[in-house]
Amino acid sequence: MITLGIDPGTAICGFGFVENLRGNFVAKNFGVITTSPQALMQDRLLKIYIELDALIKNFQPQILAVEKLFFGKNSTTAISVAQARGIVLLAAAQNNLDLIEITPNEVKQSVTGYGAATKEQVIYMVTKILNLDAPPKPDDAADALAIALAATYEADSLTRRNFLGDLS
Amino acid sequence: MITLGIDPGTAICGFGFVENLRGNFVAKNFGVITTSPQALMQDRLLKIYIELDALIKNFQPQILAVEKLFFGKNSTTAISVAQARGIVLLAAAQNNLDLIEITPNEVKQSVTGYGAATKEQVIYMVTKILNLDAPPKPDDAADALAIALAATYEADSLTRRNFLGDLS
Repeated sequence: MITLGIDPGTAICGFGFVENLRGNFVAKNFGVITTSPQALMQDRLLKIYIELDALIKNFQPQILAVEKLFFGKNSTTAISVAQARGIVLLAAAQNNLDLIEITPNEVKQSVTGYGAATKEQVIYMVTKILNLDAPPKPDDAADALAIALAATYEADSLTRRNFLGDLS
Repeated sequence: MITLGIDPGTAICGFGFVENLRGNFVAKNFGVITTSPQALMQDRLLKIYIELDALIKNFQPQILAVEKLFFGKNSTTAISVAQARGIVLLAAAQNNLDLIEITPNEVKQSVTGYGAATKEQVIYMVTKILNLDAPPKPDDAADALAIALAATYEADSLTRRNFLGDLS
């Protein structure tokens, strides 16, 4: 099973594909989709949509995972993140992917065992779990892999729970 | 020239097509795209995308107009409005429409001559200018027509200014 984690944004949109090979977690691909701040917003969203759709068709994930959005301090950024997130959800629906939404704390808890872990601790654990030679760059790609990993764990435990349910 | 005004939302997305026939403004079509609160968010966004794209291909507007987003009181609604707005911008880019973004106050000013007009005053003027038998229903459709009208005025004055610029 392959999970695509997305860290949405209009300037930098992080993505990471994680495959679950019977409890062995492998990074199939990761990186970022970038758009120019000089371009029109609608054209930036279109670029994200086209590249994301191509990635999905190429790596054929079954699950797309994104963080739940909370609005705090910076609401101007929040608008553009939410607009990009709409594009990501659309691509998930069009490609018939299951969507998993998790909170930032759940991602930290799941990857490091500690809900208040620092960014560095999360990246350290992502590198270790996925057996990568170096920490994934840039941070947006590492974040996307962390989201994919956390969602993979969640999907895995759901599957096991359903399996046990079938047996009982 | 036909302008499509959109009042984005995930439960109700208002739309209105306004044609400028040499200063005579005609409502070509208006209404709402609705989605079920019981459906998954990604499926609701997909429904909006499919219906909006079909409307654009049917009525062939040159301009798509939406309000600028400001985050105020209700940030949970704001997230879903911004996600739907992302879908609207994507459809604009894919169909090569010019995008006009205007503030709510500019819409009021433009349609009623008064930036602090009430919703009722705006709907009254929309009904009058477009020569409709009755106020457009629901309010989301009336709002979308108001946005389309304001953008039509703006595009019209830009065209005239450019024309005068050409002459000088």
